[in-house]
Amino acid sequence: MTIYDWHTGPYPARVRIALAEKGLQSRLRFVSVDLRKGEHKTEAFRAKNYSGTLPVLELDDGTLIAECTAITEYVDALDGTPVLTGRTPREKGVIHMMSRRAELEVLDALSLYFHHATPGLGPHVEVYQNPEWGLYQRDKALRGMRYFDGVLRRQSFVAGEAFSMADIALIGGMIFAGLLRVPVPEECEALNAWYARMQERPSVRNWRTMSA
Amino acid sequence: MTIYDWHTGPYPARVRIALAEKGLQSRLRFVSVDLRKGEHKTEAFRAKNYSGTLPVLELDDGTLIAECTAITEYVDALDGTPVLTGRTPREKGVIHMMSRRAELEVLDALSLYFHHATPGLGPHVEVYQNPEWGLYQRDKALRGMRYFDGVLRRQSFVAGEAFSMADIALIGGMIFAGLLRVPVPEECEALNAWYARMQERPSVRNWRTMSA
Ligand SMILES: N[C@@H](CCC(=O)N[C@@H](CS)C(=O)NCC(=O)O)C(=O)O
Ligand SMILES: N[C@@H](CCC(=O)N[C@@H](CS)C(=O)NCC(=O)O)C(=O)O
Repeated sequence: MTIYDWHTGPYPARVRIALAEKGLQSRLRFVSVDLRKGEHKTEAFRAKNYSGTLPVLELDDGTLIAECTAITEYVDALDGTPVLTGRTPREKGVIHMMSRRAELEVLDALSLYFHHATPGLGPHVEVYQNPEWGLYQRDKALRGMRYFDGVLRRQSFVAGEAFSMADIALIGGMIFAGLLRVPVPEECEALNAWYARMQERPSVRNWRTMSA
Repeated sequence: MTIYDWHTGPYPARVRIALAEKGLQSRLRFVSVDLRKGEHKTEAFRAKNYSGTLPVLELDDGTLIAECTAITEYVDALDGTPVLTGRTPREKGVIHMMSRRAELEVLDALSLYFHHATPGLGPHVEVYQNPEWGLYQRDKALRGMRYFDGVLRRQSFVAGEAFSMADIALIGGMIFAGLLRVPVPEECEALNAWYARMQERPSVRNWRTMSA
């Protein structure tokens, strides 16, 4: 299997963490797609993923799977023992909800801030920017962090009492916040404590060097 | 189980269609949340769904599941025989990818157009609008329709050769386009033919009257 990704990307990080949690690293070949050069917006790459984003997983039969959640569903189901996406109907529902909420309210919001209200990937990639929208999304992400802080005061993990894909989605948000130097509000003590705990997991500590 | 929804909403439609496909209608109680009055933005409703959107499923034990994809995962897993979200790892991955893509490229794009470049739900709900962003998203949705037209020239359903959650997501987009009178490009013959076939399914034909 091949992963098209980029070594500092918060979304690629999510899939790398999922792969490490499943012990699948050694079965993957990593192909770097240079975001700063806009390689992900070429026609050749868009034939792999119409949305022009990383990461993308290519199976040995040529099947292409884009979108972090979809790739995580695939790799988690592969050995018949899901540990990231839930076993019972209730677990599946809650994990998918919290994962999507971490995207909507934090990770995707920070991505919109990055692409619209900062130089982003540079002028020849960011051909359309809407700075007002970008700033609005940064504020949304800060509110989202406060919301998740509240969640993590009541429970140990984003989707309840076990590590899941929803934690990985919020970790993606924290990685993006770090890259962008968007400071996590100081009063978010539970969020910061959770993130410190997450970084003790080898999968989270080592994602940056996985493709090496 | 209780569904909080709104009788004309394209996202609520997705969950109603999923419920009908699973034969679960009669097990649900429908509670209408008046979007035009902004009931979904009240503190009371945000305690159910922080993102302030419909639909939300409430289980008998009080568990709340928001987000169409998450609700669909739950209801599809309930009887141990998933028919909408995939059985094999590959099916799961491809269905989740195509479902998310239908959101990103069509349904969510039309929703942003509605809320930002039309009167949307009215001035006291749409407290911040960014019309330029809304118009940009409408154009994105039209490109997205052309993309899905290409997909449907090659295969019978959005995620391959079987009906799935990904079809339901794109049906949500077509419903929204209809409501907004955004005309589906005429040359999208395969997309239009697929949508005509979809409307032959009782689940798709009857969603408007499900809560009655
Ligand atoms: N919805 C996508 C988002 C992926 C995404 O935005 N990836 C970033 C890399 S960190 C990207 O490709 N950005 C480039 C761009 O949007 O131009 C997913 O979940 O995989
Ligand atoms: N990501 C959500 C989106 C749901 C959504 O946008 N629902 C509409 C109803 S059709 C809504 O609540 N809109 C009200 C608003 O955004 O103010 C999902 O998949 O459930």
